[in-house]
Amino acid sequence: MSRFDPLPPTTLFKALESATCDEPLPATKALLDAAKFNADGLLPAIAQQHDSGEVLMMAWMNREALEETLSTRRVCYYSRSRGKLWRKGETSGQQQALVSAALDCDGDTVLVKVDQTGPACHTGRRSCFYITLDSEKAAIDSEPLIDPATLYKKS
Amino acid sequence: MSRFDPLPPTTLFKALESATCDEPLPATKALLDAAKFNADGLLPAIAQQHDSGEVLMMAWMNREALEETLSTRRVCYYSRSRGKLWRKGETSGQQQALVSAALDCDGDTVLVKVDQTGPACHTGRRSCFYITLDSEKAAIDSEPLIDPATLYKKS
Repeated sequence: MSRFDPLPPTTLFKALESATCDEPLPATKALLDAAKFNADGLLPAIAQQHDSGEVLMMAWMNREALEETLSTRRVCYYSRSRGKLWRKGETSGQQQALVSAALDCDGDTVLVKVDQTGPACHTGRRSCFYITLDSEKAAIDSEPLIDPATLYKKS
Repeated sequence: MSRFDPLPPTTLFKALESATCDEPLPATKALLDAAKFNADGLLPAIAQQHDSGEVLMMAWMNREALEETLSTRRVCYYSRSRGKLWRKGETSGQQQALVSAALDCDGDTVLVKVDQTGPACHTGRRSCFYITLDSEKAAIDSEPLIDPATLYKKS
């Protein structure tokens, strides 16, 4: 039981702003009831390599994907293009083992710290964020670790 | 001039998958013409502290906000609730100096590495991602650095 349990979902994240590290919180189920999935039922999910801190990618999770991620400890997204759950690495083998997950202050974004096998990016690069920009010029900042043709080869 | 300059915006990010670190890229303007802003004209923008690697927050940028960020080197978002540009720290004083910016592989998300003054979160915490989840339980993982009442005090 926590002092937040009686609150309606609409006010929960606001109330949690004053929560401290040592007090009991509502169960994960209640947090997910209150989380602000967008009009398509999705939250942006940022994947970060847990030890190096590298931001690997951003994708989307529906509630089912987030619940599966938390229960299996293997990261599962929702593919907007395919319209179904996407267990990261199911085709490429480049899985993400979950280390920790956190919602943000207003409950509309999730950060997953992961242990990424090989490259996170479908191009074979470690991170998807490889196109650097300044006000005038752009550049590529990393090369593929693996030829992407080998990641998605027909078997 | 780059080998990508003749390409239409719709095919640019796909073509850049094979780009190498040492070859010329189209100008930032051409990249922003091709970037996949959503139906509201926005990209998700992830802010990461450049040295510690901590993911601080996720907000949104329209093209104007991203161009201002790149030209002024001070991070500017687009506030969906206020419907206008939001120069991070304009009320709280907790600014973000831009260190580097990168688009992801499909041009629909931006990662900004920043030097954050004080807390990034309006609750006074360093990061917005302070509500950790496992499959059953949730917890708060950090305390405010500053009382949020002092961040937004009337002057």
